[in-house]
Amino acid sequence: MKTKRKTMNAKAKTVAQAQSSKWVGYRQNIKVLDCTIRDGGLTNNSHFSDEIVRAVYDAAGLSGVDYMEFGYKNSEKIYSPSQYGAWRFSKDDDIKRIIGDNKYESLKITVMADAEKCDYKKDILPKEQSPIDMIRVATYIHQIPLALDMLKDAKDKGYETGINLMAISTIRERELDEALELLAESESEVIYLVDSFGSLYGEQINYLLRKYVKYARQGGKEVGVHAHNNMQLAFANTIDGILNGATFLDATVAGLGRGAGNCPMEILLGFLHNPKYSLRPVLECIEKHIEPLRKDLGWGFAYPYMISGLLNRHPKSAIEQCESGKRDNILEFYDSMTS
Amino acid sequence: MKTKRKTMNAKAKTVAQAQSSKWVGYRQNIKVLDCTIRDGGLTNNSHFSDEIVRAVYDAAGLSGVDYMEFGYKNSEKIYSPSQYGAWRFSKDDDIKRIIGDNKYESLKITVMADAEKCDYKKDILPKEQSPIDMIRVATYIHQIPLALDMLKDAKDKGYETGINLMAISTIRERELDEALELLAESESEVIYLVDSFGSLYGEQINYLLRKYVKYARQGGKEVGVHAHNNMQLAFANTIDGILNGATFLDATVAGLGRGAGNCPMEILLGFLHNPKYSLRPVLECIEKHIEPLRKDLGWGFAYPYMISGLLNRHPKSAIEQCESGKRDNILEFYDSMTS
Repeated sequence: MKTKRKTMNAKAKTVAQAQSSKWVGYRQNIKVLDCTIRDGGLTNNSHFSDEIVRAVYDAAGLSGVDYMEFGYKNSEKIYSPSQYGAWRFSKDDDIKRIIGDNKYESLKITVMADAEKCDYKKDILPKEQSPIDMIRVATYIHQIPLALDMLKDAKDKGYETGINLMAISTIRERELDEALELLAESESEVIYLVDSFGSLYGEQINYLLRKYVKYARQGGKEVGVHAHNNMQLAFANTIDGILNGATFLDATVAGLGRGAGNCPMEILLGFLHNPKYSLRPVLECIEKHIEPLRKDLGWGFAYPYMISGLLNRHPKSAIEQCESGKRDNILEFYDSMTS
Repeated sequence: MKTKRKTMNAKAKTVAQAQSSKWVGYRQNIKVLDCTIRDGGLTNNSHFSDEIVRAVYDAAGLSGVDYMEFGYKNSEKIYSPSQYGAWRFSKDDDIKRIIGDNKYESLKITVMADAEKCDYKKDILPKEQSPIDMIRVATYIHQIPLALDMLKDAKDKGYETGINLMAISTIRERELDEALELLAESESEVIYLVDSFGSLYGEQINYLLRKYVKYARQGGKEVGVHAHNNMQLAFANTIDGILNGATFLDATVAGLGRGAGNCPMEILLGFLHNPKYSLRPVLECIEKHIEPLRKDLGWGFAYPYMISGLLNRHPKSAIEQCESGKRDNILEFYDSMTS
C-alpha cells in the first residue's frame, strides 16, 4: 500500500493538490488523530483489554490515520492503579507490548499529559527511549503556566508537542486572547480548539477557529479541533474546522468517548478525500470490537447530554443521570438543570 | 403565553431584531415546520394512533412551532387503505378529529402532496372547507410540470404553498438551475432544499442554498431546508441553512423519520433564540410518546445509513439491511454497496 502511494501518478497528485481549496480535491496538510482509547477511557477508567487496544491500533494503521493516542500519562500518586487500567498511565512498556516496533510507518503514537495530574519530569522519558512520538498537554486556562513548562519539558526531550485548552466555552474573550498569545509563543506545535462541553455551534466554532488560526500563525503553529457530540455537531464542527484552517482533527472509532462521544472516525474518513485514508479497516474494527462494547460503556448521543450541551454545562451531571439508569427520564433531568 | 408575547417590552424586541444577524439575537422570519407524523409515517406505513398524533400536535402547539405537517395527501387508488394508515391520506375529517378547531393560534396545518401520487383536483378541497393551511408539493425533477400544476391548483384553492424538490444530490447543475428558474416563477411561496439521501456536507448545502436563495429572491419566494441524518449532519445542515438565508426549517420530534431520521426538533428549538419557542413540551412528547416507539420503528443513525449517505445513494438498501435484522453487519453492507 505504501509503495502504491509513493508511485502515485505525479500529475494526478499535482492536480489534486492544486484543487485543495475545492471540495473535490484534498488538503495534504490534514492530519487525523485517533483518540479512541484515550477519550474512551473516560467511560471505563481506561480498562481496555489488549485485544481492543490492538484492534484500534490496527484500524488506525491500516486506515492511514496519522496519529493514535493511547491514553493519559497520569501519575499513579493521583490515580490508583488498583482502580484505573493501564491506559490511564500509558507506560512505555505497555505501549510497546501492543505495537512492538510499530509496523505502520505512517502512524505516530501520542499520549495525553494532564496538567497537575502528570509526573512529567519523571514519567516522560527522553524520546529516543520511548515509543511515543508526540505529547499532548491538556490544560484548563488557570493551569497554563504549568502547561507551558510541560510543553518545554516534552520539546526538550525530543517530542512533537500539542496543547488542548479545555472548557473554553466558559472562558471570557479577554482571557482566551491572553491564553492564545502565550500558546502562540509556547513550545507547542499544535493548538487545539476543544469543545469540552459539546456546547459550541458552527458559528461559534468558526469564529473561535479564525481566532485560534490568527494567533497560531503568528507563532508558526498549527490548529486542531477536538469536538464532542452532545448536540450531534461533533462531525459537522470538525469539518467546519477544516474550512477555517484547522489541520489536526481528533476522532474516535464509533465516536467512543466520554458522554455523548466524539467525532466519529468512520464519518470523518468517509468525508476526507485524501486517497491515503481507507474506511474499511475502521468499519471492521467497529463491527468486531467496538460496537460490542456499547451496551456496557453506554457512550453516544442521549437527551441528558444534549441538554447539558444546550446549557453549556460540564457533562458530569448528564453522565451521572445516564449511569444511574435514568437516561430516559428526560424531563426530570431538564427540570433539575434549569430550575 | 400569547398575551405575554404580545406585551413583550417593545424596546427589548427592537434590540433583539436589530441583532438578528448576530448569534445572540434571533431572526423573526424563521418558521419551524414539524413533519414528525409525515416523515415518520415512512417507517410504519403512516399507522400512528390518534394518541401519538395528538401528542405531536400538542407538542408543536405548546412549543410555538409554526407549522405541523400531518401526512401525505396520497390517492387511495395508489395506496391501499387496507395497508396504509390514515396519515398517508390525511383526509380533512381525520385532521379535524385530532385538532378540532385548532386551539393553537400560532400553529398552521400542512400536508404533503406527492406528484403523481395525489388526486389533487379531487382530494384537496377549497381552503375555506378545510382545516389545512398549506399544501407542500413533493416532486422529482422530471415531474416539475405536474408539480407546477399542483401548486397552481393549491394556490387557486386558497392555500399557502411550498415545493420540496427531492433527490437533488443526483441532479446535474444545469438541470437544477432550470428547475429553480421554473420554481422561481411558480405559485410556490417556499422552495425547499431537500437532502433526500442525507448525503450533502455543509459546504455543499451552503453552495446550494446560496443558489436557491438567489433564484427564490428573484421570484419573491422563501427558501426552506429539509435534512436527513445519515451522516449526523441533519441539525448542522439546518442551522447552516439559517446562515445562508433559509427561513423555513423542517424538523421532527426525536428526529423520527425515514432511515436515519431528520433534524431533531429538540436540538433545533434549543438552538433558536426566538423566545416564542419552548423546548419543554417537545421533551415531554419525546419521553412519553415518541421514544417508546423507537424499538418498533427503528429510526435513527446507523452504519448502513451512514454508508448510503457517504455513497450518495437512496436509503432503500440501507433500510432493507436494517429491517432484515442486519443493522450490525456493517462490513457486509459496505462491501455490497461498493463492489
